Amino acid sequence: MAKRIVLALGGNALGQTPQEQLRLVKKTAKIIVELVEEGYEVIIGHGNGPQIGMINLAMDFACTNGAKTPSIPFAECGAMSQGYIGYHLQQAITNQLRKRNLNRRVASIITQVVVSPDDPAFERPTKPIGIFYSKEEATQMQQEQEMVFIEDAGRGYRRVVASPEPVSIVELPVIQQMVELQNIVITVGGGGIPVVDHQDGYHGIAAVIDKDKSSAKLAVDLNAEMLIILTAVERVCLNYKQPNQQELHQMTVSQAKEYIAQGHFASGSMLPKVEACVSFVECISEGTAVIASLDCARQALQGKTGTKIIKDR
Amino acid sequence: MAKRIVLALGGNALGQTPQEQLRLVKKTAKIIVELVEEGYEVIIGHGNGPQIGMINLAMDFACTNGAKTPSIPFAECGAMSQGYIGYHLQQAITNQLRKRNLNRRVASIITQVVVSPDDPAFERPTKPIGIFYSKEEATQMQQEQEMVFIEDAGRGYRRVVASPEPVSIVELPVIQQMVELQNIVITVGGGGIPVVDHQDGYHGIAAVIDKDKSSAKLAVDLNAEMLIILTAVERVCLNYKQPNQQELHQMTVSQAKEYIAQGHFASGSMLPKVEACVSFVECISEGTAVIASLDCARQALQGKTGTKIIKDR
Repeated sequence: MAKRIVLALGGNALGQTPQEQLRLVKKTAKIIVELVEEGYEVIIGHGNGPQIGMINLAMDFACTNGAKTPSIPFAECGAMSQGYIGYHLQQAITNQLRKRNLNRRVASIITQVVVSPDDPAFERPTKPIGIFYSKEEATQMQQEQEMVFIEDAGRGYRRVVASPEPVSIVELPVIQQMVELQNIVITVGGGGIPVVDHQDGYHGIAAVIDKDKSSAKLAVDLNAEMLIILTAVERVCLNYKQPNQQELHQMTVSQAKEYIAQGHFASGSMLPKVEACVSFVECISEGTAVIASLDCARQALQGKTGTKIIKDR
Repeated sequence: MAKRIVLALGGNALGQTPQEQLRLVKKTAKIIVELVEEGYEVIIGHGNGPQIGMINLAMDFACTNGAKTPSIPFAECGAMSQGYIGYHLQQAITNQLRKRNLNRRVASIITQVVVSPDDPAFERPTKPIGIFYSKEEATQMQQEQEMVFIEDAGRGYRRVVASPEPVSIVELPVIQQMVELQNIVITVGGGGIPVVDHQDGYHGIAAVIDKDKSSAKLAVDLNAEMLIILTAVERVCLNYKQPNQQELHQMTVSQAKEYIAQGHFASGSMLPKVEACVSFVECISEGTAVIASLDCARQALQGKTGTKIIKDR
């Protein structure tokens, strides 16, 4: 039976501009299709930081500077980024599959991820998004539209949104079916479009779900054998960028928690990756998580590089 | 066996702003889920005119007015619109399914549609997109970026793109699998992201594929029994909005072609709808196409309203 793996792609697998992204996804697609060729069942989660930032900024800018375009809620910007990134990834993967005469299919599924309205993250939103506003504009929007703004280092006021935990993946049953049929599925883009489950159904909410955490949830739900978080560095480090920096080849869940408590991993950077790996390994009966560099994905799967997170022995 | 139908949704099923669209898709979703409840196997194609217009305009405006966002190619704007509209539709349909305790799933698939680089439409692009430019800006972009501009009634210069015929749907095999598993699939959004099939693989091209034609292609490829084009009017008319206006209850393919030749249907409006219906009915061994109003979809399926396009007797 094929080994089922969930790959979480970060910023270095995608790009800042459409041109750069088209170039980078070609390389990313090659890496992914090589894994498919080796017999892995691959499911892809990906980030959207620069892309949703760009979309949100352009939409805010156009709307407030007289382009006569409407204001676009943040969840909708996330949906746009899923379409945009999904298109590039799936085109590049399709082209690689055809080049190698592999009879496999790939599809991006627009994906909603449920968050809890009671998530403590909503009490102190921290993720800055969109353009800078004056104090007056920010105060007005704060009152009228229930948005939260913070002053950003003298550059003006910027909206902040919360980063709640992923609770469940709305489209999971369809994703499951598609994976069972040997399709390469691209999903939980940008961590998923954040929705809350109200009495009258799901609806979008302004938030950013960490893509590594959503990918971990996806890996648990799909009963994957491995969660692979691909990033720009080869291994997780203790005392990162200090003279006593130490590369980690492996850590148990308990060790990882200890290192987290000791403050070794930067929040918004390595911390959510390690936390995502811990949550995956804790939730499944068997399986490991790996944090590795995109370029060495294959070697990481063979245990030759990257940092493995395993169950306590 | 369930009757398989492809619904093509137009502007009146969606909305100009996110708020309006969220409101309208609720109604649209109710209509769709009622058909599902009655036992129809529903596949959804949809337009994206106002949405891609808004995205393209905001992106162009932000990029050229100092927002420091990159220029976004038109195909990528289409991908964004698929994410945006797909999200709204699939959320509204999911909410309706849950409300009625129907154990069915819905998913939007990012969809590329192949067009031919030799399509005669590329010789005379006609679809205006994006913002107005000065003559100087237009001339420069025309030279540097191979874009085509036309002067628009004294308001400035506007970019035009071609509207080529859909040749094939790249993600068809996945769509087919999902439909077979009784899923409600949302696809060929905005007619699909236009791509050409080059030596090095598929890549995006600036064009607008008519959504009714792509929906007709989808209906043929899925061997659907019916193509239903839902719009704002109840029936197709001869001599539309003239004193001798005549509603059509039914027309054969030959009749439709005759009416087309007589110039009864406006290009960019009823003409592509009738052409799409003709192409569907001509390509399949059995089945009919219907043009009807969104509000009367159910009655149209029962033959009580709308205009049926059938094979010659």
